[in-house]
Amino acid sequence: MAYKHLNNINSPEDLRKLPEAGLKEVAAELRQFIINIVATKEGHLGASLGVVELTVALHYAYHTPQDLLTWDVGHQAYGHKILTGRRDIFETNRRLNGISGFPKREESEYDSFGVGHSSTAISATLGMAIASSLNGQEEKHHIAVVGDASIASGMAFEGLNHAGVTNANLLVILNDNAIGIDPSVGALKEYLTKARVGYKPRQSNIIEALNFKYFGPVDGHDIPGLLKVFEELKQIKGPKFLHVITTKGKGLKKAEEDQVKYHAPGKFKPDTGELLSYDTTGLPLKFQDVFGLSLVELASKNKKIIGVTPAMPTGSSLKFMMQAFPDRAFDVGIAEQHAVTFSAGMATQGFTVFCAIYSTFLQRAYDQVIHDVALQKLPVVFCLDRAGLVGEDGATHHGVFDLAYLRCIPNMIIAAPANEKDLRDLLFTAQLELQLPIAIRYPRGRGTTVNWEAPFEKIEIGKGKCLRKGNKIAVLSVGNMTTNVKKAIKKLNTEKPAHYDMLFVKPLDEVLLDQIFKEYEIILTVEDGVIAGGFGSAVLEFAAKNDYKQKIKVLGIPDEFIEQGNVGELQEIAKISVENIREEIASLFLNF
Amino acid sequence: MAYKHLNNINSPEDLRKLPEAGLKEVAAELRQFIINIVATKEGHLGASLGVVELTVALHYAYHTPQDLLTWDVGHQAYGHKILTGRRDIFETNRRLNGISGFPKREESEYDSFGVGHSSTAISATLGMAIASSLNGQEEKHHIAVVGDASIASGMAFEGLNHAGVTNANLLVILNDNAIGIDPSVGALKEYLTKARVGYKPRQSNIIEALNFKYFGPVDGHDIPGLLKVFEELKQIKGPKFLHVITTKGKGLKKAEEDQVKYHAPGKFKPDTGELLSYDTTGLPLKFQDVFGLSLVELASKNKKIIGVTPAMPTGSSLKFMMQAFPDRAFDVGIAEQHAVTFSAGMATQGFTVFCAIYSTFLQRAYDQVIHDVALQKLPVVFCLDRAGLVGEDGATHHGVFDLAYLRCIPNMIIAAPANEKDLRDLLFTAQLELQLPIAIRYPRGRGTTVNWEAPFEKIEIGKGKCLRKGNKIAVLSVGNMTTNVKKAIKKLNTEKPAHYDMLFVKPLDEVLLDQIFKEYEIILTVEDGVIAGGFGSAVLEFAAKNDYKQKIKVLGIPDEFIEQGNVGELQEIAKISVENIREEIASLFLNF
Repeated sequence: MAYKHLNNINSPEDLRKLPEAGLKEVAAELRQFIINIVATKEGHLGASLGVVELTVALHYAYHTPQDLLTWDVGHQAYGHKILTGRRDIFETNRRLNGISGFPKREESEYDSFGVGHSSTAISATLGMAIASSLNGQEEKHHIAVVGDASIASGMAFEGLNHAGVTNANLLVILNDNAIGIDPSVGALKEYLTKARVGYKPRQSNIIEALNFKYFGPVDGHDIPGLLKVFEELKQIKGPKFLHVITTKGKGLKKAEEDQVKYHAPGKFKPDTGELLSYDTTGLPLKFQDVFGLSLVELASKNKKIIGVTPAMPTGSSLKFMMQAFPDRAFDVGIAEQHAVTFSAGMATQGFTVFCAIYSTFLQRAYDQVIHDVALQKLPVVFCLDRAGLVGEDGATHHGVFDLAYLRCIPNMIIAAPANEKDLRDLLFTAQLELQLPIAIRYPRGRGTTVNWEAPFEKIEIGKGKCLRKGNKIAVLSVGNMTTNVKKAIKKLNTEKPAHYDMLFVKPLDEVLLDQIFKEYEIILTVEDGVIAGGFGSAVLEFAAKNDYKQKIKVLGIPDEFIEQGNVGELQEIAKISVENIREEIASLFLNF
Repeated sequence: MAYKHLNNINSPEDLRKLPEAGLKEVAAELRQFIINIVATKEGHLGASLGVVELTVALHYAYHTPQDLLTWDVGHQAYGHKILTGRRDIFETNRRLNGISGFPKREESEYDSFGVGHSSTAISATLGMAIASSLNGQEEKHHIAVVGDASIASGMAFEGLNHAGVTNANLLVILNDNAIGIDPSVGALKEYLTKARVGYKPRQSNIIEALNFKYFGPVDGHDIPGLLKVFEELKQIKGPKFLHVITTKGKGLKKAEEDQVKYHAPGKFKPDTGELLSYDTTGLPLKFQDVFGLSLVELASKNKKIIGVTPAMPTGSSLKFMMQAFPDRAFDVGIAEQHAVTFSAGMATQGFTVFCAIYSTFLQRAYDQVIHDVALQKLPVVFCLDRAGLVGEDGATHHGVFDLAYLRCIPNMIIAAPANEKDLRDLLFTAQLELQLPIAIRYPRGRGTTVNWEAPFEKIEIGKGKCLRKGNKIAVLSVGNMTTNVKKAIKKLNTEKPAHYDMLFVKPLDEVLLDQIFKEYEIILTVEDGVIAGGFGSAVLEFAAKNDYKQKIKVLGIPDEFIEQGNVGELQEIAKISVENIREEIASLFLNF
């Protein structure tokens, strides 16, 4: 397909030169462009396909970048990126040194606010709108596009609640496609569903009650209709709310039919949408599936096990538990704060609650972990998927802070299994009446073992293990860095160090550490979390407390945000790749 | 006053033996009891006075503790504590080894959930209700009492949104007194205000839209009316919402008239409510006032300064800025997440936003600090009041985690001034186009200097200072621990160590540290934050990175939750009191 229009659109200014009648073709080209690139380069598909017309209409009607446009979450912003000068580099999407998969301020003046985590757009855009007013720029428009899953998050409500008592020139566009990554849930969603089918006058009330002027619902694939309502909205002062109905995956039949799978489908045939299957025979399972399937196994024997996920049944694989035990598994929507305290509430009544949250999203419930769970010593099991470097999702999504931010919380147990067997055994151990909260953090992607279904064994809390003895140097690792260290040691062709898989970041195995510090002269710690305050830092604190004077070298994520790339590339940047570790050990031996 | 009834009520069971007609007298006695104790022992007054009748009616109508009752925040739970077996120890409220100022699970089976931070009750109680249902205890009732300021927080919305799609036997009671600690704000509050004055059928809709059955508004001081509606509610399945109108400070005229002051009034005359004034002449200002007044000074010269507070204009002293520059100061309600991202949004438009949040409450916006502010290098100035040990508010409120949880975030500057002068100069420096976020954390209470209004001077970011040279040992302190260390050194009658006020926890003054490590043989760090991952840990990381082998001793909050008491007592427990520090230094010299 030739992109007759699109090839000439290097900025929204070019788009705005076209006659309105030409926009439908632009939209068709834009949709095809997205499909063609994502089919081969991978990325988030469904959300961007759903807002093609909305994207074209917004940039046509409003004067971006002077008018400020924020896409909530940002999965849907591919069309926006392509229309705002990034068409020719779009194929670098989510790659190392390429463009980010999310809007990002550094990348373009059209990206008014960096996004990635959900439900921030209303707050940020309200801030911009009030700032414009203080700057005397009353003519500026400020638009936040928010999905129906994101708007049900508490943070979005806080933004609406504040906006409603201002006269900010704010337009909140609800992009209602009835699905986030998984189908949306919650009472607000049911309410919006009624609004979709025409209960408008009464049902707009919940938004009007918050002092927004409510418009819609309108068809989000009808460009003339959108343009008409935008012209109307431009004339209206104060906070406004436009309810737009779209279809996620619009224009690619298979993507419309299976919206969960086509959220981020991997490679597919651009003409039919058919997924390019690749042979996974012989590959280990993903850690998330080991979690999800093992939990079902445990829950079938222990009736006191509960599963909770904030809007990630598929991503966390809690879906297996939701299918097997629907009464005991809860998708609470994008509501991490609620997820944690809801779990705490159930835990007070004798349940062991497995609360599955991506490491990066637990940041959203930090206070609840401290105040509602740890302080009360409630047995909530935090299953932190996507811990460490996550790869292509980049800086907003790396789960690299968890060891540091959890380690300072009293009563928390923190474990980082290196393999599927330990993950399973930790899950097993966690439901044996620990009487304390535990965080089990494991990486994105596949494990290391094909035969992961070994019988469960109890793990002693706070016990590390010696993987090999060695000379002079002891390497201490946690999580999937244990695999990297193993490989690095294998590659060493000189002396070899000892290697300990500490497994627990808290409590530290102080008995084992005493042995190690008595036996070895240099200690090297390796983690895929931030150095500041992390696992290595815990070892330093132990050594200081016990007056050990050995050299201790800490490898981990340096004090900077790591951008997108594949995990191997990012490990190189963070200096925790197999080769980095090998070099570090060799250098320590050399300078001994 | 003799407490004719109250003296015989040792549990709600005793209360329930009384005839309904006697409850009014019980309420009168309970109110008087609260006034009499709080008048002399201090504590939170207004909220508990406002719910005396509601408290009596709830425990009379429901079978606590089998029925589960959760008080959101818990400022209003004094009556509850007194009726549930804690009458005779109520005078130990908020004292060391006394009862907590908040409901607490360890303290009583009637305290179904520990509280302190706002807006957790709906989530926790929903968890309990679903747990009861899974346990086959369909007869149990589950009640969350939530104030109108708390219910406008995003977390409460998340709880309502989930509850609305369950059939949980949950009763949410909105205790609507139109005020939190300061008057409530936001669109939902305006909406509820309309409901108060009788727009019931239409205005109940926002709650009904979330699938709750809405009842009220009812008079929260009318016990027979409350009992009647409770009997009705008991018969109704699924989530229910009762809107109760109360008057904060009810029954003490002065407390009703000045609800902000009488939230926690200090000592007063129990008969008239007249505050016992004490002479503050010659005392230094509170740190919060130095912040609030200095910000006004700066804002009068720099039009780009904005102030934001989540519901703490009085507590943070942002009220001064709100009075002086109402257009540039925002109370956004109990909405820490929104407060931070709203600040970030304004910062994108060229403003320097001073976001004043208690240290403990910034935990609520941790992800927003990372994802919306630090990642984008936006110049938001986090003014963290109540950092360190806060005293009588206890475990839920100590601001002891901030150094650890902020230190791991790239791009963050973290400063802990030891005195008013440094606080002022940090505020001054923060608005000089830093291009990075900065957290300035300072303690609850008064400073050290009477003449705090010295002219502003720019501080070099990341520079510490030598307060005195010494022998062998260097003591490194931050924040108000600098004062403790000064006093400790003064008391030493042997050798004296060097003392450095590092001022910045991040970036560390590595030049100064190099000098210190070259000059001294033992390093002692002192902070009023958690040891795990805190300031001392940063010094350990520095030493490890640079191969310094000195003994480093870290003083700070140990790995446990510290309960309530006065700050001096708690410093003793944490081993960071003046005397503890003196002993530590003396012992280091002795064992040298």
